[in-house]
Amino acid sequence: MARTGAQKLPTLDTPLDDAALKARVYPLSEEADRALRETLASHVPYIEEVSRYIIFSGGKRLRPVLFMLCAAAAGGEPDPRLAAIFEYLHAATLLHDDVVDEAGLRRGRPAARVRYGNDSVILVGDFLFSKSYSLAVEVGDHRFVTALTRCTTTMAEGQVLELLATDQLELDYPGYLEVIRAKTAVLIAAACEMGAIHAGAPDAVVEALYDYGMALGLAFQMVDDALDYVGTAHEFGKPVGHDLVEGKITLPFIHVRDTAPAKPVGHDLAEGKITLPFIHVRDTAPARVRERLLSLAREGRQRPEAVEEAKELVVAHGGVEATYARAAEYARAAQEALGRVPELGGDREVLLSLPGYVLRRRH
Amino acid sequence: MARTGAQKLPTLDTPLDDAALKARVYPLSEEADRALRETLASHVPYIEEVSRYIIFSGGKRLRPVLFMLCAAAAGGEPDPRLAAIFEYLHAATLLHDDVVDEAGLRRGRPAARVRYGNDSVILVGDFLFSKSYSLAVEVGDHRFVTALTRCTTTMAEGQVLELLATDQLELDYPGYLEVIRAKTAVLIAAACEMGAIHAGAPDAVVEALYDYGMALGLAFQMVDDALDYVGTAHEFGKPVGHDLVEGKITLPFIHVRDTAPAKPVGHDLAEGKITLPFIHVRDTAPARVRERLLSLAREGRQRPEAVEEAKELVVAHGGVEATYARAAEYARAAQEALGRVPELGGDREVLLSLPGYVLRRRH
Repeated sequence: MARTGAQKLPTLDTPLDDAALKARVYPLSEEADRALRETLASHVPYIEEVSRYIIFSGGKRLRPVLFMLCAAAAGGEPDPRLAAIFEYLHAATLLHDDVVDEAGLRRGRPAARVRYGNDSVILVGDFLFSKSYSLAVEVGDHRFVTALTRCTTTMAEGQVLELLATDQLELDYPGYLEVIRAKTAVLIAAACEMGAIHAGAPDAVVEALYDYGMALGLAFQMVDDALDYVGTAHEFGKPVGHDLVEGKITLPFIHVRDTAPAKPVGHDLAEGKITLPFIHVRDTAPARVRERLLSLAREGRQRPEAVEEAKELVVAHGGVEATYARAAEYARAAQEALGRVPELGGDREVLLSLPGYVLRRRH
Repeated sequence: MARTGAQKLPTLDTPLDDAALKARVYPLSEEADRALRETLASHVPYIEEVSRYIIFSGGKRLRPVLFMLCAAAAGGEPDPRLAAIFEYLHAATLLHDDVVDEAGLRRGRPAARVRYGNDSVILVGDFLFSKSYSLAVEVGDHRFVTALTRCTTTMAEGQVLELLATDQLELDYPGYLEVIRAKTAVLIAAACEMGAIHAGAPDAVVEALYDYGMALGLAFQMVDDALDYVGTAHEFGKPVGHDLVEGKITLPFIHVRDTAPAKPVGHDLAEGKITLPFIHVRDTAPARVRERLLSLAREGRQRPEAVEEAKELVVAHGGVEATYARAAEYARAAQEALGRVPELGGDREVLLSLPGYVLRRRH
């Protein structure tokens, strides 16, 4: 079993520790939740049911919260109704992604597609997509909706890029960056950018907050990709699969055993997704390790043990630390983007602390 | 084999016959084609390939043509670039529909999902959806984009309604009307409405053209549903499956045999879709026929011969004629909506003739 020492991972100085940060963010995410409940109306009750299933499944409301924080920082009203746009878009993406990935689980429970079927999930995704545009159009601000179209077009391209990159063992760092930029970071950037636009901020502020969101989003996705290699255990330093090795059958295990399809869940490599931890080791490890890694990855889809061994190789050869190092660079870049606009008001401490939180999160 | 006499079907007086109508519409659909070729750009060449496959597969450009006709009728510029919005949306819907329906064929060749996979098709559908919004937002007109969000939200609801209505043998006429209104007619209505909006027309004109498009769209879908019961033969009065019974193996047969999945294609009833021809016979035929029809429909998914027999019952008991009669009412209503706005300019003759063409089309 691979073990990763938490002490090796980079950190970032932040004005607030995680507890203080969460305390300040919590009321915003509550407001977003309320707005989501209020705006999630359809003439078709079934659509509301499927939408609620995906939207109220424990998401952290990162995107709506960022929209409100950036709107306030730029001197505007942090309208939770508009913040909902970003959660709807995110949910639409998750619904379609789960169909594409044939996902069995999402946030620890059966994916919406398992419960409601692929058909429903594709169509409700389309509905949520339209819903987000309906809300955005209410603002009546050309710059606002234009930013949204740029975002959704790039996101769709990102999903396709990711699909095309599947099983491409030779995917390089720029290619990887392009995928995670389009599929994840662009929406987070748009939430920040559109908060500033809604506040009527000048271009320099809009651009700085866009850059902040983009860097934060890249750091966020890199950490996600690193965590995929060290498992979903809530604490680092705990070997992956630890409970199971000790014969403990825990609720997560039972849940997956009873609901998931045969294929492994949450393992990027098992699904042919080539991410930074893999890329780093493939490109820096000794030839012998590289050959072994590639050969295991080629077997990955057929043989779960090959994926396990590949994961151990990646962890043992520093793939996770290297990924965190890159994520830390982007987290710092996010803070620096804020530094370009010292005139920002609102809760600057929270904005400055989020990049550190993203680095520290372990699930 | 069922036989439907063409002489029983209703017609509608129109200023232009089909040949004259086509001659006037052709240049517009050419313009739409050009605009589609010009605007269909993506950073990802693969997206362009899949998009081209669905968009340039012989569609009639009904929606872009209507947008341009209505814009011109309301005294505006018939901008083909904006007309493309409606073809992109239509294509996005077709892509997602084909995944939901597990369609094997579309317009006589393998559906995009057969060729490119469900994954690609879902994501390219999302891209085309965003594309249509990108174009719409360029106009910078709040009323224009608001009309689009109303349209796409209703369309998504319509797709879900259709899904929920699948295998509901008791679906009634109002329920059927709600489905076809949302899934088909709303987009055609929006193309007409938004043409008028773009021309800066007063509300009364915008509403009249919306009503025109809505009625035309309902007639269009009803004819589609009727044609599903009399086959895709190019001429009426020719028994369905005629060639095959006589042992002629034609290209359409070879194509379907070699490319389609095992399940029958284009047969609504075989896919559990309850449409007006069925509803009419279920509600008006003698009890003995109704019972037989319902029992055959229940078997439909498992036994192709049951679907065949059900189709023959529906045709024999006037389901097709009754559907055409309703379609004719809507076609007349479309003409009447135009009558409300005698001040309209542009090519009024074409707009007045399209409802008749929709009734006359046999494929």
